[in-house]
Amino acid sequence: MNAIKNANNTLLLGIVGGSGSGKTSIAQELLRRMEAQGLDALLLDMDAYYAPLEVVKARFHGGPINWDHPHAFDLELMASHLKALAQGQAIRKPIYDFKTSDRVGWEEPLHPGQVVVLEGLLLFALPELREQMDVKIFVDTDADIRILRRIQRDTSERGRTIESVIEQYLKSVRPMHLEFVEPSKRWADLIVPVGVENTTAMDMLLHHVVGRLGASH
Amino acid sequence: MNAIKNANNTLLLGIVGGSGSGKTSIAQELLRRMEAQGLDALLLDMDAYYAPLEVVKARFHGGPINWDHPHAFDLELMASHLKALAQGQAIRKPIYDFKTSDRVGWEEPLHPGQVVVLEGLLLFALPELREQMDVKIFVDTDADIRILRRIQRDTSERGRTIESVIEQYLKSVRPMHLEFVEPSKRWADLIVPVGVENTTAMDMLLHHVVGRLGASH
Repeated sequence: MNAIKNANNTLLLGIVGGSGSGKTSIAQELLRRMEAQGLDALLLDMDAYYAPLEVVKARFHGGPINWDHPHAFDLELMASHLKALAQGQAIRKPIYDFKTSDRVGWEEPLHPGQVVVLEGLLLFALPELREQMDVKIFVDTDADIRILRRIQRDTSERGRTIESVIEQYLKSVRPMHLEFVEPSKRWADLIVPVGVENTTAMDMLLHHVVGRLGASH
Repeated sequence: MNAIKNANNTLLLGIVGGSGSGKTSIAQELLRRMEAQGLDALLLDMDAYYAPLEVVKARFHGGPINWDHPHAFDLELMASHLKALAQGQAIRKPIYDFKTSDRVGWEEPLHPGQVVVLEGLLLFALPELREQMDVKIFVDTDADIRILRRIQRDTSERGRTIESVIEQYLKSVRPMHLEFVEPSKRWADLIVPVGVENTTAMDMLLHHVVGRLGASH
């Protein structure tokens, strides 16, 4: 696998953390910094890989859908896309519509460049995805800070009531975190405490990407 | 402080972890790799900074001495040495004799090169030390693996009985870990799961050191 990777220099860097951990901010800031250094980088969010609604409904047998459970995702598609990206091949990312909770089409072909930054809740929990990552980063933020961020985001940006946020948190977000996200920390190469304000960790990630790409030229 | 550091390029990198976490192996491997890259690096172990026996006895009021407690160390000396090293000044490290548990002299002057790697249990627990580090790494190894390593090391290399190892572990090592070492994880810039076999983390540390030194030339 390393031989193939070295031949085309596409590094897959996965960022995992619980809801509200700050993983999205870290992924975006990392991408911004990489681009500022002239690197050709791509950001890929696991949310695009929710399975088509009919598939999800069937998997949950018509009952309530748990959107934080692996069954809500199209893992087969995502795994094959990661494999293609690592080999320098373009993919067509699915277009997902959060309003209808369904896949509505496919984007124009995306070329992987030198680095693909992946972010998502379950990237390390699932071996099909985890085993394809070159660098695995877990963002570890205390649970009280995470729920506070989620409350702020969902009530102000998404117009939801605090009661509905708390109910969803206790009913699915928290149990799925304990079952899948938290234990997947053990697969991480590195754990980043707190979020994007941890500038030493951000510097280190950037130095590592630059160092690895430099070494394989 | 950054201006002074940039002027002489001495980076202080602290490595903390519980007993048996693998911090010493990581520090040594990092030093080996840095030297292989032509960097001028120095390794400094907190153990050299145990306080003179008379001082320690007085601090424990003649009672049993807890060697994992901050009171067993000469923090004032270590803090002033870190300050000197960061400013590019030489220090004379104390020579500590573990047989007599006492300081027995001073080494020849040590010049800090470009990087000083510090390792020790309490480096992040104590603000006088913690605040002087440029990079703070916590090696996080599960407690069962740590005690197994300690048993193996102390029975085979140090000729102790398993009972005495267990007694010391329960009486002082573990309580001090929970009181000082574990909570100091929150000050780390980066947490490294498992030890020296985590090659991605080792690569990342090395890339970061090279990147930071390169940037300040």
